[in-house]
Amino acid sequence: MPASGGMPPGEFRESGHRFIDWVADYLAGIDDYPVLSRVQPGEVRDALGREAPQGGETMEALLRDFEAVVVPGITHWNHPAFFAYFAISGSGPGILGELLAAALNVNAMVWKSSPAATELEEVTLDWLRSFLGLPPDFVGTINDTASTSTFSALAAARERALPEARERGLARAPPGRVYTTAEAHSSVLKAAHALGLGREGARVVPTGPLRGMDPAALADAIDRDVTSGVRPLAVVTTIGSTSINAVDPVGAIAEVADERGIWLHVDAAYAGVAAALSAMAPHFAGWERADSIVINPHKWLFTPVDCSVLYVRDPAALRAAFSLTPAYLETGEQGVTHLMDHGLALGRRFRALKLWFVMRYFGQRGLRAHLARHVALARRLAERIDGEEEWERWRPTPFSLVVLRHAPPGVRGARRDALNLALMDQVNRSGTAFLAQTVIDGETWLRFAIGNIHTRAEHVDATWKALRDAVRAVAAD
Amino acid sequence: MPASGGMPPGEFRESGHRFIDWVADYLAGIDDYPVLSRVQPGEVRDALGREAPQGGETMEALLRDFEAVVVPGITHWNHPAFFAYFAISGSGPGILGELLAAALNVNAMVWKSSPAATELEEVTLDWLRSFLGLPPDFVGTINDTASTSTFSALAAARERALPEARERGLARAPPGRVYTTAEAHSSVLKAAHALGLGREGARVVPTGPLRGMDPAALADAIDRDVTSGVRPLAVVTTIGSTSINAVDPVGAIAEVADERGIWLHVDAAYAGVAAALSAMAPHFAGWERADSIVINPHKWLFTPVDCSVLYVRDPAALRAAFSLTPAYLETGEQGVTHLMDHGLALGRRFRALKLWFVMRYFGQRGLRAHLARHVALARRLAERIDGEEEWERWRPTPFSLVVLRHAPPGVRGARRDALNLALMDQVNRSGTAFLAQTVIDGETWLRFAIGNIHTRAEHVDATWKALRDAVRAVAAD
Repeated sequence: MPASGGMPPGEFRESGHRFIDWVADYLAGIDDYPVLSRVQPGEVRDALGREAPQGGETMEALLRDFEAVVVPGITHWNHPAFFAYFAISGSGPGILGELLAAALNVNAMVWKSSPAATELEEVTLDWLRSFLGLPPDFVGTINDTASTSTFSALAAARERALPEARERGLARAPPGRVYTTAEAHSSVLKAAHALGLGREGARVVPTGPLRGMDPAALADAIDRDVTSGVRPLAVVTTIGSTSINAVDPVGAIAEVADERGIWLHVDAAYAGVAAALSAMAPHFAGWERADSIVINPHKWLFTPVDCSVLYVRDPAALRAAFSLTPAYLETGEQGVTHLMDHGLALGRRFRALKLWFVMRYFGQRGLRAHLARHVALARRLAERIDGEEEWERWRPTPFSLVVLRHAPPGVRGARRDALNLALMDQVNRSGTAFLAQTVIDGETWLRFAIGNIHTRAEHVDATWKALRDAVRAVAAD
Repeated sequence: MPASGGMPPGEFRESGHRFIDWVADYLAGIDDYPVLSRVQPGEVRDALGREAPQGGETMEALLRDFEAVVVPGITHWNHPAFFAYFAISGSGPGILGELLAAALNVNAMVWKSSPAATELEEVTLDWLRSFLGLPPDFVGTINDTASTSTFSALAAARERALPEARERGLARAPPGRVYTTAEAHSSVLKAAHALGLGREGARVVPTGPLRGMDPAALADAIDRDVTSGVRPLAVVTTIGSTSINAVDPVGAIAEVADERGIWLHVDAAYAGVAAALSAMAPHFAGWERADSIVINPHKWLFTPVDCSVLYVRDPAALRAAFSLTPAYLETGEQGVTHLMDHGLALGRRFRALKLWFVMRYFGQRGLRAHLARHVALARRLAERIDGEEEWERWRPTPFSLVVLRHAPPGVRGARRDALNLALMDQVNRSGTAFLAQTVIDGETWLRFAIGNIHTRAEHVDATWKALRDAVRAVAAD
């Protein structure tokens, strides 16, 4: 009998059971860990050897060091009081899906290199598309992160708007430009820069009072640019911005983009899954008119990182950007997809498996129930904040991110900013919760991001109480 | 007690044990699967539902469908007679490392978001660097694939060579160019195109008889380009090309690049790990002079996909390309690394964990023994081929890839190409092995890539016999 992955089969089985028990215990006891790691810089590094061992070690020794050295250096994204960045969840079926994907270890670069990996990706992304109410002409591809998905979409947009750059490069083409707002994710600027457009290649369009893009200002910016010889490549809108969950009026912006034949991208990496809730429909009005949409199941759909989905209406545009062979030279099986042609990476992990497991294990009803529960927890917190005179909430709270600050009378400007950071640090250092800050118009606010599958009302309430209690502790310092 | 990842803790534990048993049985019985999947296009798709289920399903049902629908559509990269592309291995410790990474579900974007994920990546890549005999000034980052690593390196090279493009974009800068050979991986052209250099942005430099880059031709190409106003960005060399394992004379090329101040990149995605074998040193002469090197532990170091390592001598060059904040504005903890600034993706899986497990479980001696064993199997096969009058081997065979063809007297050109493809198809369709083809000077050869951890002499011998037996079968058709 052959060794299992270079390990005697009995050893793999026995170690595997030990590791599953560790994970089961870890997840069941997650409440007892401090959320934010307490290690100092260099502490983990110093606890590890300076060279790989010469001789092999046992899985028991590895697990022991994992527990002793790695786990204390972990910030527990699984903790139900992880409210920083966006709260995410691996979920049981997602974790076991990753186990099988790692065991199969296939590469979904071309159809033949594992037909099931390509076709399961196509089917599962069609399920997700339908779950979100998007029309059937959107075709999905899984990437690692939203940064990569947005990069791919903008690469396709560049190819469409500047076909002359295909052979000769951008140096001999007119300058290209992407339009977005100050609320957009940093990955938009990163992508524009990587694509050779430079920092001037992304123009920040003014927003309205709720920080949504102003369609008239967009039209004006584009038309002025065209007059001065700039080639508009794409408009990048956001539904649920990272900082405050701002929502661009995508329908009105689609009008502007359509009239001018410009690629429309929607970044709904976090909030996109909320489209499955009918009550959320107004936030998504018009998104079905986009050329591309990014949604991350690894954010708010209980799927382990990494799993970012890029939907495009015209996959040939992606192939134009990334395939090295023109379509008429393609060979081999008819009617199959080679997913390597949809992005930069040639090698592709079998990421669809975990998403398929998650969608089947929870079912559409179960997924909607978890999403609705998170939205309800956010509303409940919003009401509590609104009931406190010395606390403010950034409005609106469209999804499950609540943005708040302590604003006692007479405390303003830098003093108020410092006060809120001190409150946040007090809570984070306690280990009972983890919050992050943001800046709106130069002023500091706190982000309370709900979205972990383990989070219940008691975790939200306890953290909200901890914040208020911190006021006294900070005042006493 | 909270639910484990949205699943009752008892259910996670029980399902986890079932899944581990499935993986253990699968790996122990891998020889019995057909290597290449036999499904027809659309077969997997048609066996799956058209919508996600409304209600949730059990893990038992998921595992049942996984076995019935997914596994028959898998091409088994774990199979010891998988000799196509490059043979890879997940390995037991790697698979269990991925299980823990999926369970922790952390994001190594900034240090604080899980200090252990950042520091373990730094330490493990330093172990690997030392194992490969590279000097300590190389700093590593894990990316998904070599395509991404090469893209990142070339983005850094572009930033260095064309600083004026940072603000204003490439449209107002001189054309940039990358130098490589026809042996280079397609990802080099893909990266150059994505970076806005166009197809003309990659120049193919002539090679010598063994398909290594000709340093004099390189110097000439660069100097002529400079005279005509082109800005040279980078030279991309390869140690162990995908098609035939060609090796560029990196030392001589480093001279040319150094004299001209041009970024030198080495693509050693597959063969790089062989630098750990002292007998292989001549192939790597001069690679320590590179600005960047890519090595994929997910290819030939028994680590599940994805895990590609980019080593750079000057990480500030990566940050210049990808960090949105200038270094002097960086905030927070001192002396820590924010790995999101080393590439396009903001979110980053905890990929170092599996590599740390692999390096510790096998130890340096164990890893070297597996690599040396694969090289020896390739030499053994090479000798057998050389002993057969009607078979040819492409020479040399520097690592563990053997390139061969059947060349009976009087059969040439298109007839010989068709004959070799027929032999390959015969073997691949039998399910006992999986080989791929390549084209050298317009002629078809077969690639016999050894590198899976389960592969033993009997698998190589049986496949070599199957190829020779296929000659009779094909002749009889």
